[in-house]
Amino acid sequence: MPLLTRISGPRDLDRLTPEQLDELAAEIRSFLIRAVARTGGHLGPNLGVVELTIALHRVFDSPADRILWDTGHQAYVHKLLTGRQDFSGLRTEGGLSGYPSRAESVHDVIENSHASTVLGWADGLAKANELRGVDHHVVAVTGDGALTGGMAWEAMNNIAAAKDRPLVIVVNDNERSYAPTIGGLANHLATLRTTAGYERFLARGKQMLNRTPVVGRPLYGTLHGAKKGLKDVIAPQGMFEDLGLKYLGPIDGHDVQALESALQRAKRFGGPVIVHCLTEKGRGYQPARDDEADQFHTVGVIHPDTGLPVSSGGADWTSVFGEEIVKLGREREDIVAITAAMLRPLGLGPFAEEFPDRVFDVGIAEQHAAVSAAGLATGGLHPVFAVYATFLNRAFDQLLMDVALHRCGVTFVLDRAGVTGPDGASHHGVWDMSVLQCVPGLRLAAPRDADQLRAQLREAVAVSDAPTVVRYSRGKVGPAIAAVDSVGGMDVLRRPDPGTERPDVLLVSVGALAPVCLEAAELLHRQGISCTVVDPRWVKPVDPALPGLAAGHRMVVTVEDNCRAGGVGSAVAQALRDADVDVPLRDFGIPDDFLPHGSREQVLARVGLTGPGIARQVTGFVARLDGRFDPAGAGLQN
Amino acid sequence: MPLLTRISGPRDLDRLTPEQLDELAAEIRSFLIRAVARTGGHLGPNLGVVELTIALHRVFDSPADRILWDTGHQAYVHKLLTGRQDFSGLRTEGGLSGYPSRAESVHDVIENSHASTVLGWADGLAKANELRGVDHHVVAVTGDGALTGGMAWEAMNNIAAAKDRPLVIVVNDNERSYAPTIGGLANHLATLRTTAGYERFLARGKQMLNRTPVVGRPLYGTLHGAKKGLKDVIAPQGMFEDLGLKYLGPIDGHDVQALESALQRAKRFGGPVIVHCLTEKGRGYQPARDDEADQFHTVGVIHPDTGLPVSSGGADWTSVFGEEIVKLGREREDIVAITAAMLRPLGLGPFAEEFPDRVFDVGIAEQHAAVSAAGLATGGLHPVFAVYATFLNRAFDQLLMDVALHRCGVTFVLDRAGVTGPDGASHHGVWDMSVLQCVPGLRLAAPRDADQLRAQLREAVAVSDAPTVVRYSRGKVGPAIAAVDSVGGMDVLRRPDPGTERPDVLLVSVGALAPVCLEAAELLHRQGISCTVVDPRWVKPVDPALPGLAAGHRMVVTVEDNCRAGGVGSAVAQALRDADVDVPLRDFGIPDDFLPHGSREQVLARVGLTGPGIARQVTGFVARLDGRFDPAGAGLQN
Repeated sequence: MPLLTRISGPRDLDRLTPEQLDELAAEIRSFLIRAVARTGGHLGPNLGVVELTIALHRVFDSPADRILWDTGHQAYVHKLLTGRQDFSGLRTEGGLSGYPSRAESVHDVIENSHASTVLGWADGLAKANELRGVDHHVVAVTGDGALTGGMAWEAMNNIAAAKDRPLVIVVNDNERSYAPTIGGLANHLATLRTTAGYERFLARGKQMLNRTPVVGRPLYGTLHGAKKGLKDVIAPQGMFEDLGLKYLGPIDGHDVQALESALQRAKRFGGPVIVHCLTEKGRGYQPARDDEADQFHTVGVIHPDTGLPVSSGGADWTSVFGEEIVKLGREREDIVAITAAMLRPLGLGPFAEEFPDRVFDVGIAEQHAAVSAAGLATGGLHPVFAVYATFLNRAFDQLLMDVALHRCGVTFVLDRAGVTGPDGASHHGVWDMSVLQCVPGLRLAAPRDADQLRAQLREAVAVSDAPTVVRYSRGKVGPAIAAVDSVGGMDVLRRPDPGTERPDVLLVSVGALAPVCLEAAELLHRQGISCTVVDPRWVKPVDPALPGLAAGHRMVVTVEDNCRAGGVGSAVAQALRDADVDVPLRDFGIPDDFLPHGSREQVLARVGLTGPGIARQVTGFVARLDGRFDPAGAGLQN
Repeated sequence: MPLLTRISGPRDLDRLTPEQLDELAAEIRSFLIRAVARTGGHLGPNLGVVELTIALHRVFDSPADRILWDTGHQAYVHKLLTGRQDFSGLRTEGGLSGYPSRAESVHDVIENSHASTVLGWADGLAKANELRGVDHHVVAVTGDGALTGGMAWEAMNNIAAAKDRPLVIVVNDNERSYAPTIGGLANHLATLRTTAGYERFLARGKQMLNRTPVVGRPLYGTLHGAKKGLKDVIAPQGMFEDLGLKYLGPIDGHDVQALESALQRAKRFGGPVIVHCLTEKGRGYQPARDDEADQFHTVGVIHPDTGLPVSSGGADWTSVFGEEIVKLGREREDIVAITAAMLRPLGLGPFAEEFPDRVFDVGIAEQHAAVSAAGLATGGLHPVFAVYATFLNRAFDQLLMDVALHRCGVTFVLDRAGVTGPDGASHHGVWDMSVLQCVPGLRLAAPRDADQLRAQLREAVAVSDAPTVVRYSRGKVGPAIAAVDSVGGMDVLRRPDPGTERPDVLLVSVGALAPVCLEAAELLHRQGISCTVVDPRWVKPVDPALPGLAAGHRMVVTVEDNCRAGGVGSAVAQALRDADVDVPLRDFGIPDDFLPHGSREQVLARVGLTGPGIARQVTGFVARLDGRFDPAGAGLQN
């Protein structure tokens, strides 16, 4: 790596010749493939922005000029050029974050990994520069996928209203968000691509265009068929310019000289300007180029030459859902699926193959997913919107006002709920069970294993007059955990020894934490503390039988991998109060803080959600109950 | 009312002649002015859609065809034509809702009053029709203001992707959402308005155009100046057609024949089509036409001839905020204000007049308001985003991920928090104190009176490294309530009689419910139940002194006009648990249900949030404490 190792900051790029820049790009690609193969991470997106990132850092002067990345997983090259070349611990505890991180570098601004935000940030920063008389540039790098999100349009509308406020918008157009980008906007961008008058759009670009009607899977075939059929597009560059935005492009996003020339023009323009760059996701890596569906968007640990995963497979939560929804689709014609640009990562691939007309990819548009689900339900269907738990926050208002207020039978399937791990603070799905508690009528299931996921998904889609939610973890499903008994609609997973008159602890176990709770119960048992473990299955509403069960114990402990504030523990506590059951309760969950990246196990251990961690604390609580020890002056005796 | 009284359903319109239709329109306007003057309500928007509503119901066959209204406050005429002509109880308990209501009529579909949703609903309904082989039309009526919301664009992008799925989009363009519509879209619509080739755009339309550069207030002058300067618009009808949408218009929205003709063409088209209608908000009512800023968007009870309010003024929460933010603006140059198309209703008019460069109206775009606030804060300013509490739900993800994760100093001012009243289920602001509990680092204030609002707003804008929230009620501020003592950062509003050893009840009073709590305390006192009333002022985080204070009482009662699930009561309960203070707690708030319209007092009474209601229940709790009565087998004794 003779060149890359000499780059310790953006200004080191200034002295390189055009040939050296090409060489540097090749070095970076080679570095990324080897580094990400070792740790896993976002490979395809970063291979696509090598030249673009080099050009941005040559034309603009970060950190005085602000270079902002939408969906920061495309910032690996930016990291390499801003002094961060040790990728050995990428996305693992103590290593580099998989996203920009202000703790890592002054060159990073936005840490958020939720899409479509960058134009809003840029608008705010540009306004602040203007008001404070700061003479530096703001550059927002967004993608064609991110432009399908409503926030991007809200921002465009505002940016366009001030024609003298400089702001450079780079649209990194690779024709796909995760899956190929869909919708009217995609058609419009396709038209831009075929328009004459662009600069230096070379032979490579033509190869890209030949690729456009990718008919890899039946669904994509359908979508692309719809796209190709649209003939109404009459004003090629119009859409952005109608909004009052200056447009430059399209530019070959792998030609550093062309990019620099366009970015220089944009920098001089003195108002909001769009630079439309065409890039190839997975550029320079044959396995990614061969993978038409997602071009190695995210990978686990892989073999660098073949791109094949190193670790073995095994049933994960996502595929259990994916199989069951296909079965349900066969049984019920009214079931339709919705995804916000995440068809395959959410396990909807098989459903889409079997029922191509019954799946709707709405783009990175969670709000639209939820509100159109309300329409679909009102029209007589039962929509299932599958989404990462963290992204549901985008659709909270629509879930509340459109789905719940209208009592629509819509099922929300929350994948990657709870602690996720390597993607860090903004990918953990630890808010859903709190914010959803206050949605009237909503029912929320947290299955503990694959059997329960299948069963509860069925129970969920059977509800036709209220929203239902099924939330589960990321990764592999644990072994099946049989119920030893049931109370109301709840499964008892462990009973204290027969003859125990009033057991010490009722342990309420939520979802995938059942093994942790059972381990805690066993540890407590060894210390002579008797314990019932119950899985409520449906955590909202609280099972009517729970207060009665709680009343037979000396204390209640709840365990969830969701934030403690307003979570299941709080809901259980409220249900006990409402039933005048004032048994002491302690709740375990995620503290009031953002969680940095690490493996799921590391993060859970950090917040005390382990069998031993829970057992240790519960032992202390029970000791106080026994001794009526009361440090606060009131405590458990009252 | 010889004609209107003969219309009991849409099909009664079929037999009317063109002259009779004009007569009917005049009757409806006259009816609306008299009826709304008596009760208050949304007057301007409904005066603008009289002819449009008539034409829609003549061309389409509701309820088989679905006529959907964005921001349903423009559905009064629709109500009149679908069998609902008793407006005497409009927006009051037992009377007609101010929005569509499925309980009232099969002709109503969407009850939600949050803007920009209708295209998403329409997309879902159209997809359902297609899949189920239902051969009926879906017609979505939206406005130029609603199109500034990101959801509308997400929907447009999806609708445009299916060129064979019929869907009629009526854009009711009155150049304003609440205030004049701003942004690049507004410019684009202005261009459409000036394009040749439209049908029957008569002399009246020209008067409208002359009105376009309304320079009523300095702010609007600035905004309009920016708009007029934009010369880049090159493809007049392009923006919609770029997305693949057929465009018809602009149409004179007060010419029933022209409207019918356009709607018939749209109905026959067989794909998604936009019908662009120009209307005048407040049409036919001189006081509304004279009111350039908002054209009588919403009115209280007014005199029908003059449009002047009948009730007297008086300090309301909004104007207290409006005055204080101006003072703060004078003291600190870094304070800027943001509104989502609600400048005046939120009290920001005076700030905008004094600091026109420091206020940003982003359109009906709460997401952009929050994310651009993160950018403004990162750029060195302190943004204050004022918004109705219910609309903050649109920006939850941005508040969490962009503002809080990035530790931005942004102040959210939530007006109309808690029970609001006449606007019904979707306008109550009863979710904020629940969903915001799980935002790490956020601080939330609920001032009890005008002095506290002023003080806590100052405390909020002094925080530079975390989001702060100040939430207050709708309407008049109550009298000042002095603190008799303080504990930690909390105000004690009432102490039990001196010498009371361990008082019975610690009453935690949140915000504007202080008078209710003091009344409850007095009633309890008369029954021999001793009571401390404390106003925590900042409800998140829970004051560290609260558990200690609670430990000195026999029980804790929390009172908030926010939903009980995950609200302040839950947060206090959790803080007590964390401090091992197991004093029994009972929490009063909004139950897990949507609240129909009525006055604030009626709704509060319905859910038990009155002095006598609280006192009665607390008396029962204390009796159980005294008697150690324990119906559930455990209860308060444990």
